[in-house]
Amino acid sequence: MTEALKVGVAGLGTVGASVIRILREKANSLACQCGRTIKVVAVSARDKGRNRGIDLSDVKWFDSPVEMAASNEIDVFVELIGGELDLVHAAVKKALERGHHVVTANKALLARHGVTLAVSAEKKGIFLHFEAAVAGGIPIVKAMRESLSGNYLSRVYGILNGTCNYILTRMFTEGLSFKDCLADAQRLGYAEADPTFDIGGHDTAHKLVLLTSLAFGTTISLDDVYVEGISNISQIDIRAADELGYRIKLLGVALKTDSGIEQRVHPTMVPTSSMIAQIHGVTNALSIQSDLLGELLFSGPGAGGDATASAVISDLVDIAKARPGFQYAPVLGSPALQLVPHKKAHVSHHTGGYFIRLNVHDRAGVFAAVARHMADNQISLESIVQRPFVESQTVKTIILITHETTEVNVRKALAAIEKDGHLVTKFQLIRIEPMT
Amino acid sequence: MTEALKVGVAGLGTVGASVIRILREKANSLACQCGRTIKVVAVSARDKGRNRGIDLSDVKWFDSPVEMAASNEIDVFVELIGGELDLVHAAVKKALERGHHVVTANKALLARHGVTLAVSAEKKGIFLHFEAAVAGGIPIVKAMRESLSGNYLSRVYGILNGTCNYILTRMFTEGLSFKDCLADAQRLGYAEADPTFDIGGHDTAHKLVLLTSLAFGTTISLDDVYVEGISNISQIDIRAADELGYRIKLLGVALKTDSGIEQRVHPTMVPTSSMIAQIHGVTNALSIQSDLLGELLFSGPGAGGDATASAVISDLVDIAKARPGFQYAPVLGSPALQLVPHKKAHVSHHTGGYFIRLNVHDRAGVFAAVARHMADNQISLESIVQRPFVESQTVKTIILITHETTEVNVRKALAAIEKDGHLVTKFQLIRIEPMT
Repeated sequence: MTEALKVGVAGLGTVGASVIRILREKANSLACQCGRTIKVVAVSARDKGRNRGIDLSDVKWFDSPVEMAASNEIDVFVELIGGELDLVHAAVKKALERGHHVVTANKALLARHGVTLAVSAEKKGIFLHFEAAVAGGIPIVKAMRESLSGNYLSRVYGILNGTCNYILTRMFTEGLSFKDCLADAQRLGYAEADPTFDIGGHDTAHKLVLLTSLAFGTTISLDDVYVEGISNISQIDIRAADELGYRIKLLGVALKTDSGIEQRVHPTMVPTSSMIAQIHGVTNALSIQSDLLGELLFSGPGAGGDATASAVISDLVDIAKARPGFQYAPVLGSPALQLVPHKKAHVSHHTGGYFIRLNVHDRAGVFAAVARHMADNQISLESIVQRPFVESQTVKTIILITHETTEVNVRKALAAIEKDGHLVTKFQLIRIEPMT
Repeated sequence: MTEALKVGVAGLGTVGASVIRILREKANSLACQCGRTIKVVAVSARDKGRNRGIDLSDVKWFDSPVEMAASNEIDVFVELIGGELDLVHAAVKKALERGHHVVTANKALLARHGVTLAVSAEKKGIFLHFEAAVAGGIPIVKAMRESLSGNYLSRVYGILNGTCNYILTRMFTEGLSFKDCLADAQRLGYAEADPTFDIGGHDTAHKLVLLTSLAFGTTISLDDVYVEGISNISQIDIRAADELGYRIKLLGVALKTDSGIEQRVHPTMVPTSSMIAQIHGVTNALSIQSDLLGELLFSGPGAGGDATASAVISDLVDIAKARPGFQYAPVLGSPALQLVPHKKAHVSHHTGGYFIRLNVHDRAGVFAAVARHMADNQISLESIVQRPFVESQTVKTIILITHETTEVNVRKALAAIEKDGHLVTKFQLIRIEPMT
């Protein structure tokens, strides 16, 4: 049997502790699959004294992850630190320089530095694996990197943030407000004390850019993503969507269009009968559309110590099975030097259907004015619902579902409606994602 | 760049022709991903004269796949013949003997000879890949072989036969009889002229045994599978199931139980709200349950030339990326010599809920007798529906949904009911699969 694969784990939070525990508990099964053992020989974290429920007496402790990365005692540097992007970047760069394989769960690192790091790894003929960085336990990175080689992809979309899906699910099933659901999610540990990164859509955007690169062979560009969060989704939107046959999900969408690649993160109307509408709670899901396969859908746990550890361990097993130097392993599916910058399709050029909610003054002529502005901008309507959603004598709510139109036309119509002074509150605009 | 990977394709049906066409059309993209070109240099099929819409002028023709397998002009033997198991077996054995990697879509070959062939491949340090053999275009084999390394699996179930799911879907949506749906499926090319292999559940069983081996590290045993097909599913069953909140799907299920591993293929009641119930038409889907991940679900195209070709090509790309002799690649996840025979859990020991339909003579005391036999066998009932499903003055239909009980108890109760002489026709018994 080949000698053990020596692993250094940086970051000993929930995921790091899970990885070490599982590598030990399942050592025999893993050795059988790999033809060699996988052994944690070094760790690095901030607080040496903290009890993490794992015995660290036989592993070398490093106060600095960069020092561990520089050590010649490890074969693989596992980066599970999160946060502190500069420190993490320095450590991963150092590990690659030293010729150590890297496994990371860090979407922020890769969204910013993924291509440069991939170039370094590929130059050395070593692995930079990141299954855990997107959709947690769903093995989507390997599938996109290795299983779809013969396919040209046209669209990838998914529920990539469990916190948002948990909140939207509870808002639907229990009729609670966004605020109350968020508070509950925080209480249950599904949302951070500062939830902005999740509910603002930024976490989804970080994951989406990695999927975009894997899907289309393009460089990674976080700045090109249009991002909207879920904090302005109201019960009225959820109830109106339900009546019209839709559910509201926060989706990340990467779409190839004639004018370039659209990368969007926003609350999205999906048909109630679609698979993606059935994804509840903290579960993640991803749909991939391609020329040969039509649609593939994957769903599973998007977060959690064990699920994320499962992804990290599959990366380690990949590395343990390969014999160093004899594997051609483009980090992002295509060699990093051949990734091309994509042409960004601006969201103003987006075409699709829209859900529009208008809270208007209840006076004569308002509806006619709204209808006229829609018609003036070549927007035809699929559904119109007017209901006393808001309990008020003087305000009424108009819900419109448009047929396919352009974002620019919708924005023009809404600007004209705003200018007329009919709106009591800001309009609500939610894109509808067509399903195959 | 490393020299080209030389491929010989045996079998030039829809899939074989798709593989060759796609390898040519996408040669640059594939070379970029692999660091070398993939080149079809030889083919073998029965009828050299047939027009397959692909130019074969620059590839060597072999009348015999065994001869092609023995040739030293290829690196990989791609087996897409199907049928003629002895010939295929001889060819694949020969290819492995010669040290050629093998890619096959042949579930029947692997269900019978998979472990022996895997041993041969692993001894030589070469690949025996079979992504296309299970669930067509869904990359489930790689996921189970490589992405779930750290997991202990407890259950795998899925819709693995598009023909059956197409028929059951149309029976539900259009109220047609099994016979009419089958005829339509044959007309549309979704079912063979002799549909027994599909509708009898045997195709699903062949795929299931490969999944069982991947899931539990066991040898492959086709004879251990309990198999029931869908031909006795009636409109009454489908309508009654719908009323009670279920859909009927033909599932293959591999389940770890205290008494061993259950492998079952049969029509199954699944809750209407479950993901698997939303899988319509020829689509396949697979659910995997494990300790670290809870549930993963994959859905996508289970058949078709392009979808199957996509799987074959991903296998070829895997092989092209590896540098021969330097990859540790257990064919079935664990080394073939370490696969263990599983203890078979007989279906009579199955525990679960049951849907029971009884067509009984409409006379006094029948229902009381049925209820008594259930109680005598410790079977408690969740639902009882009695409706004039059959248009008859003298016959009535009783539908029972049981709480969890054992197959042996249900069989005893039904035998006693039969013995009483109350049944007008044979009872219907459909197992309910619990969902997480």
